Amino acid sequence: MLREHYMKIALSLAEGVRGQTSPNPPVGAVVVKDGRVIGMGAHMKAGEGHAEVHALAAAGEEARDADLYVTLEPCSHYGKTPPCADLTIAKGIKKVYIAVTDPNPAVAGRGIEKLRAAGIEVETGICEKEASDLLAPFFHFIQTKTPYVTMKTAITADGKTAAYTGHSRWITSEQAREDVHYIRHQQDAILVGINTILQDNPILTTRLPQGGKHPIRVVLDTHLRIPLTAHVITNKEAKTIIVCGQDASSQKEMELQEADVQVIRLQTRDIDIPLLLKKLGERNIMTLLVEGGSEVNASFMKAKAFQKFLIYIAPKLIGGKAAPTAIGGEGFALMDEAVPLTFEKVEFIGQDIKITALPKEGCETACSQEL
Amino acid sequence: MLREHYMKIALSLAEGVRGQTSPNPPVGAVVVKDGRVIGMGAHMKAGEGHAEVHALAAAGEEARDADLYVTLEPCSHYGKTPPCADLTIAKGIKKVYIAVTDPNPAVAGRGIEKLRAAGIEVETGICEKEASDLLAPFFHFIQTKTPYVTMKTAITADGKTAAYTGHSRWITSEQAREDVHYIRHQQDAILVGINTILQDNPILTTRLPQGGKHPIRVVLDTHLRIPLTAHVITNKEAKTIIVCGQDASSQKEMELQEADVQVIRLQTRDIDIPLLLKKLGERNIMTLLVEGGSEVNASFMKAKAFQKFLIYIAPKLIGGKAAPTAIGGEGFALMDEAVPLTFEKVEFIGQDIKITALPKEGCETACSQEL
Repeated sequence: MLREHYMKIALSLAEGVRGQTSPNPPVGAVVVKDGRVIGMGAHMKAGEGHAEVHALAAAGEEARDADLYVTLEPCSHYGKTPPCADLTIAKGIKKVYIAVTDPNPAVAGRGIEKLRAAGIEVETGICEKEASDLLAPFFHFIQTKTPYVTMKTAITADGKTAAYTGHSRWITSEQAREDVHYIRHQQDAILVGINTILQDNPILTTRLPQGGKHPIRVVLDTHLRIPLTAHVITNKEAKTIIVCGQDASSQKEMELQEADVQVIRLQTRDIDIPLLLKKLGERNIMTLLVEGGSEVNASFMKAKAFQKFLIYIAPKLIGGKAAPTAIGGEGFALMDEAVPLTFEKVEFIGQDIKITALPKEGCETACSQEL
Repeated sequence: MLREHYMKIALSLAEGVRGQTSPNPPVGAVVVKDGRVIGMGAHMKAGEGHAEVHALAAAGEEARDADLYVTLEPCSHYGKTPPCADLTIAKGIKKVYIAVTDPNPAVAGRGIEKLRAAGIEVETGICEKEASDLLAPFFHFIQTKTPYVTMKTAITADGKTAAYTGHSRWITSEQAREDVHYIRHQQDAILVGINTILQDNPILTTRLPQGGKHPIRVVLDTHLRIPLTAHVITNKEAKTIIVCGQDASSQKEMELQEADVQVIRLQTRDIDIPLLLKKLGERNIMTLLVEGGSEVNASFMKAKAFQKFLIYIAPKLIGGKAAPTAIGGEGFALMDEAVPLTFEKVEFIGQDIKITALPKEGCETACSQEL
């Protein structure tokens, strides 16, 4: 169908800006008249023009009596920019095709109502599944006020994240590591545990041939053991947030703040994952990549606090009873207690395999209930 | 090309008898005349007719001036049956299409020579890759006199073969387990370590809705700790071989022999994998499935004594620092020391993922050199 054809162009535009629009969603729009594309656009950055604005600007006067394809329902409220529904009406658009409606309580069907009230025909649900996948982090954030969490791990074919010595450079190929850097680029924040900092001292920036956005670095460090010389503190390409428990040294907290690092002190002894996610959500962190070691991953698994699990498997066997695995902690005692997943996608990235898994029954964080 | 079309039918015939012809290879043959298939056959069991015999018998008198498609070079020597090359000549076949030539020193091109000497046109290399894959265990056995070893493991998405408690029923779905039983059916022998016997007391037979061939059960048990009540001893559906080291009790060995179990005593303190494979090869075991626990797998990995590695990954997370993984032992210290693999195939089996991996650089057993 031709309407799917045009919507797919709009989806490609949205895909292209994925991760750079937070806390707004990635949205694409296409204006079509007499079968010709006369305008295209995407929302490129929060605070700047929405997808419809760019697409309608490109169409100019020709927009009159044209059709508009947009991946998300046009907004109807005054935010940082005027409502797109109003602009669509003013431009004289004849028909609007929408992939998904906006769950944002400030929009929720009102954009469509406004368009229809102005005599514009509206059709929804075109490529709805594809658009929903693309918008999943935004929808999750709107509904739970906590980040959409992606856990990522890289393992050998026998399930190890390092040799028994801790040696782990590199498990996967350069292509898989580039893929991970592109995923970093798409995230608002990236999270590791203090053990990863102490052991590997990573920089945790996005390093891609074409450049990329650096996510905020979040380090879980209950007792503020991080050295002031750690790369995540001395490197200033990205912001760093250190999260500690109630008993951590105030002196160290001050030193970190002087080093221009933000400290979030939780009012609990240990780091409670649902509470942590609430705090990150309050800072408008819509997407979080957990690249934690074995223990951090175990905490997120136990709290069922993740929406996606990415596994890169390298074609090699390292062995070792004492070699670390993706998820440590105590673990569950019985197979029936295991957290069920659905394997959504399996693909080759160079010589490695990448598995995209989702929690099976809408694995919700405790935060989605009232804390 | 039509010749590939007919060869693929022959390959399907061979695929259908995979695992039931040891120590002979699975071979298929198709006779074609004027574009019509007039005969089809496969070698179904060692000692019985070869593929050509069945296909030519089906073709009958019509075989004269017909073409023969066969997945492996016809034999030229008298074994348990007369040479197929002679039969092909006697039947008046005009042209023979062959997928791969036979590495068996008793054949090695002589079948082809014989055909050509009789004025039959011969073309080789049709669907060579597919036929070579199918014949890999046979070729390996002929060349090394040791079994083609397939290691198999089933893991959670976080790389565990059981919970920290040892609980492991079940990791994968019924469909994946049925797939494993079909693979058992295709093997001459199946191998586990004594720990698996003591912990799970498995029967290790092939259990398939349509029935199946039971492989010989091989148990590695250095000190003959196996109880006489173990299923692999009391169950008589399949033969059992217990392998022990030089210091194991002779009394126990006698008791086992009285229970109709064969004991192979190696002249080494521990079980040396290359030596073990040599002993199994001497017993005409052409294919071996290693379903060992973590330590047995580690021994095979360390000796690089495997030709295929099958990994079933279940969509669940169990966690646990102390939970066992596919390959234990000490392991390698550095990532660069890891045994390199090639991921040959990835497929969904129900909700699980099955990865077929091969050792990267023709991982040969030490047995292929002189012992």
